[in-house]
Amino acid sequence: MRVSRLMLVTLRDDPAEAEIPSHKLLLRAGYIRRMGPGLYAYLPLMWRVLQKVSKVVREEMDATGALETLLPQLHPAELWQRSGRWAGYTAGEGIMFHLQDRQGRSLGLGPTHEEVVTELAGDLLRSYRQLPVNLYQIQTKFRDEIRPRFGLMRGREFIMKDAYSFHADEECLRQSYAEMDRAYRRIFARCGLRTVAVEADSGAIGGSASQEFMVTAEAGEDLILASGDGRYAANQERAISLAAEAVALPQGRWPAGLGEALATPGQSSIDGLCKAHGFDSSQILKVLLLLARFEDGHQQPLLVSLRGDQQLNDVKLANAVSARCSAAHGALLEIAPLSAEASSKEGLGPIPFGYLGPQLEDGLLDGARTWARTFLRLADSSATGLEAFVCGANRIDTHLVGAAWGSLCPSPEGLDLRAAQPGDRCQHDPSQRLEASRGIEVGHIFQLGRKYSEALGARFTNGTGAEEALWMGCYGIGVSRLAQAAVEQLHDGKGICWPPSIAPYEVIVVVANGAEASQRELGELLYSQLQASGVEVLLDDRDERAGVKFKDADLIGIPWRVVVGRAAAAGLVELVERCSGHQQELAATALMETLLPSLERGRQGLAP
Amino acid sequence: MRVSRLMLVTLRDDPAEAEIPSHKLLLRAGYIRRMGPGLYAYLPLMWRVLQKVSKVVREEMDATGALETLLPQLHPAELWQRSGRWAGYTAGEGIMFHLQDRQGRSLGLGPTHEEVVTELAGDLLRSYRQLPVNLYQIQTKFRDEIRPRFGLMRGREFIMKDAYSFHADEECLRQSYAEMDRAYRRIFARCGLRTVAVEADSGAIGGSASQEFMVTAEAGEDLILASGDGRYAANQERAISLAAEAVALPQGRWPAGLGEALATPGQSSIDGLCKAHGFDSSQILKVLLLLARFEDGHQQPLLVSLRGDQQLNDVKLANAVSARCSAAHGALLEIAPLSAEASSKEGLGPIPFGYLGPQLEDGLLDGARTWARTFLRLADSSATGLEAFVCGANRIDTHLVGAAWGSLCPSPEGLDLRAAQPGDRCQHDPSQRLEASRGIEVGHIFQLGRKYSEALGARFTNGTGAEEALWMGCYGIGVSRLAQAAVEQLHDGKGICWPPSIAPYEVIVVVANGAEASQRELGELLYSQLQASGVEVLLDDRDERAGVKFKDADLIGIPWRVVVGRAAAAGLVELVERCSGHQQELAATALMETLLPSLERGRQGLAP
Repeated sequence: MRVSRLMLVTLRDDPAEAEIPSHKLLLRAGYIRRMGPGLYAYLPLMWRVLQKVSKVVREEMDATGALETLLPQLHPAELWQRSGRWAGYTAGEGIMFHLQDRQGRSLGLGPTHEEVVTELAGDLLRSYRQLPVNLYQIQTKFRDEIRPRFGLMRGREFIMKDAYSFHADEECLRQSYAEMDRAYRRIFARCGLRTVAVEADSGAIGGSASQEFMVTAEAGEDLILASGDGRYAANQERAISLAAEAVALPQGRWPAGLGEALATPGQSSIDGLCKAHGFDSSQILKVLLLLARFEDGHQQPLLVSLRGDQQLNDVKLANAVSARCSAAHGALLEIAPLSAEASSKEGLGPIPFGYLGPQLEDGLLDGARTWARTFLRLADSSATGLEAFVCGANRIDTHLVGAAWGSLCPSPEGLDLRAAQPGDRCQHDPSQRLEASRGIEVGHIFQLGRKYSEALGARFTNGTGAEEALWMGCYGIGVSRLAQAAVEQLHDGKGICWPPSIAPYEVIVVVANGAEASQRELGELLYSQLQASGVEVLLDDRDERAGVKFKDADLIGIPWRVVVGRAAAAGLVELVERCSGHQQELAATALMETLLPSLERGRQGLAP
Repeated sequence: MRVSRLMLVTLRDDPAEAEIPSHKLLLRAGYIRRMGPGLYAYLPLMWRVLQKVSKVVREEMDATGALETLLPQLHPAELWQRSGRWAGYTAGEGIMFHLQDRQGRSLGLGPTHEEVVTELAGDLLRSYRQLPVNLYQIQTKFRDEIRPRFGLMRGREFIMKDAYSFHADEECLRQSYAEMDRAYRRIFARCGLRTVAVEADSGAIGGSASQEFMVTAEAGEDLILASGDGRYAANQERAISLAAEAVALPQGRWPAGLGEALATPGQSSIDGLCKAHGFDSSQILKVLLLLARFEDGHQQPLLVSLRGDQQLNDVKLANAVSARCSAAHGALLEIAPLSAEASSKEGLGPIPFGYLGPQLEDGLLDGARTWARTFLRLADSSATGLEAFVCGANRIDTHLVGAAWGSLCPSPEGLDLRAAQPGDRCQHDPSQRLEASRGIEVGHIFQLGRKYSEALGARFTNGTGAEEALWMGCYGIGVSRLAQAAVEQLHDGKGICWPPSIAPYEVIVVVANGAEASQRELGELLYSQLQASGVEVLLDDRDERAGVKFKDADLIGIPWRVVVGRAAAAGLVELVERCSGHQQELAATALMETLLPSLERGRQGLAP
């Protein structure tokens, strides 16, 4: 392809809309163009990258025997109502675009396809003899993001590979899950990316085990916590660790049990309390008041206890609340702090915020108009593990010192609700500490189990002639996100350094001075030779200065540049490798034999 | 691929939801599955067909220098408001699905991409030096069809290749249009289809010239009118012809001019009038009362005159009305017959339906509450060409005989508003007659001109340094519809007869009796030999009777079947060509040399 025909428009300056390097570079190098919030046109160079990533994905999926398909993007609401996710995806997080058609029927724009594919599988897969089956598609998905940003990282339209496997039993599901794990590692390696596999939360998708694949990069949205020994890595949403030892309250100084009142005027923060009285934050019980809202309208006040030096993990809390309430009240739509305004609107008396203790009585909720009238009481095991603690007295300007579970109030079950932090000791080996790094999630695999097949009635006849629900797994790769993640991981001050296997073109021939016949002719000759050898090659034939062409070649990140300059008259060209900057002068006649083996290695995802 | 792993589920009986052969066959043979009204899952076999069609399309588009891209499916309403199409596509025909995002911004789901691509081109293409450019994409499109039907023929989601070209002048546009015409003919030929190119209406897309490509098939939704000499073919929506000669009213029998009143009690139909008085229908002036509704709320009564033996062409009428009113009132949303109820609701006096004449006075509309108070008067040239005619007297049970334009009322401009009919004489050669056939539209190319670039401000600097709007063409192929059209054109009583170039697999090896080791082993051997030669091959390894396997092979329509049966022990197999039914027995060792040359021809879209 001639660069003059490529509609290439590069920008000298960073566009104001972009915050992170990969987004800036994709805009500057003419790969994408914003058409609306979170909506991008993939320009010809970008489309080639996406096609190459897709090809790698297809080859590795096909090699496992998975079958490619394409499912509708418009989903009848009824399917999502049957799985119980319609309300959560539209009214709750509201992540699913939805509309009514001319007949007034509700449709969602697919952010994921569990419902549709389960319905299909229930229709087609009737016997264990047909199993296992793994169906996949590469398709644009939709999410009505609250804050679309970072270009293709968090767009409202994005390209996904999503696969769904169906099995006669859990063991077969586990095997396919492991096979997908291996396929994913091959895919990312072939795309030339450094990735790390981490334990992940199953979130709104559901199921038992799940694992994410992260492209490591400073600008990653996800925090990864991993042990130095390489035996444990998890997304912070999911990560577990040992809390630091608490500093015990001095024995005997305060009567244990009900605690002694301590005047703490204006000391409503843990920090203020510690400073004023010399407490360690691990001696304090932090009590949070929140409100959970459910699909059926149920509103449940939550009283959550944590140790004062610990932070709440919102994802763990949501999972714990769902597990306790969703069977009765449908999808959990939201958990938000319970505010003073909301409580007074509800008709309740004043709440001693800043001075709450776990002994807060349900009586407080007696007058509630729409909320449940008992608290759901939850506690992290760092809090339930305290022998004696400082907590609010449920009276303004007063705390209790030396309070203890059992005496003060019954101890709730100890759950894991705390956010693991960098520096925490690891559960698998307390001599190891968690270290933080950042990553961009490009893949996620799940053992779904039978959640969807049971909800949607997708049943098969097993070997004994009995009917049962299908076992399912699902496996996603963010194709467009992966392409941008590659840029985030592989760029330098001059521009993009595409891995050769997913670069839009492998080679760019730059004619330094098109006015010189010898340069122009040699450029054309090499261009046609490379094309004839099946090399994906650009010829920069534009009427621009050599410096502009070199800058553009670096910016768009073509792995190999062949410069046809003054030495063309002597039959010499310069070969420059983009990622290393390595340059060599060589005879034009030797170009093919030098370049082709490196290109072959690049196509396989190997380092040059 | 082994058939046992293909998730193949074939149906013995025609599904109730399907009306036409191709829809029945695609359902029965396990190619598609309905997930909702107008929403289909493309199962693995279908997806392979669609990928093959797409590959042919890509190769031919790329060969013209067109650039592949991918544009968003969600379109900001603002772009469609600027082009003036938002109201027509949402409130009018209502063909565009639309929704509001969480910020309350309106978005449409793209049925076509003129707005988005013009906005993009206006941003990127600033100089004549960058032109011409032709951008294309292969993508799922959305249409909220009033009546989705015929499977993939008229679905609410469908796959399109849409291309948009940009030019510095009209001559360059014409050249690209001609080049696309040639590329389209190659694409359809390579897909193994018989197509005909016809003149077409530009409809809601707009522009000057446009041409459709029709796959000829009895179940086609479109009526094609073509001359026997092959020099003229058009969609009936657009077709022109010479109306038959009118039978002149006898001279002198009635005073010419104002006409003589004739009592015609109960003779409100042309048929009744002719029968009662011996008129020829070509002597009657048919006067229709309709109401056009526009984007800005304007409602315009229409009084349309046609010769009594002619039919109104709705598309031509809509074009004529738009041309006269849309500049002032925005998009034409609808034209519907003006009913007695509507007129009385509007507060008007009784209208003498069945006895209308072109002299109907605007005074009738005087009391109109919301409608315009003058008629838009239109007439087909078959009507304006009449010297004297019979028409309604605008009084119940009375007609006028011998009325004439000029005396009775002024003659409107003579337009082409009539539907051409099979049997009509051709304009290009009156000795030729129009013949009817039916077709399925699979491609449509348009010279758009500057409609969109002017509306959206997509301007470039021309060779003289002045700014002007880009010239545009657009070019569509219905990829999923084409695949079904192929089935409609190429099937028999046993099933589908795929053209080899777009068949999901080229060869199916059927092991007649899997319990026989010699058959099983030879089947496996041939399967691996064919795979090793790059042949797309199925091995029917299912534990089914031979008859079932043969029936399924015919139904799914694989071009070549290799039967490994009893003669396998003697090293013989049977080779069956699906389309001709031709069978030959040959040595298994000779299979490759016999089959490979035919496969190569098939891949190029040539007859075997």
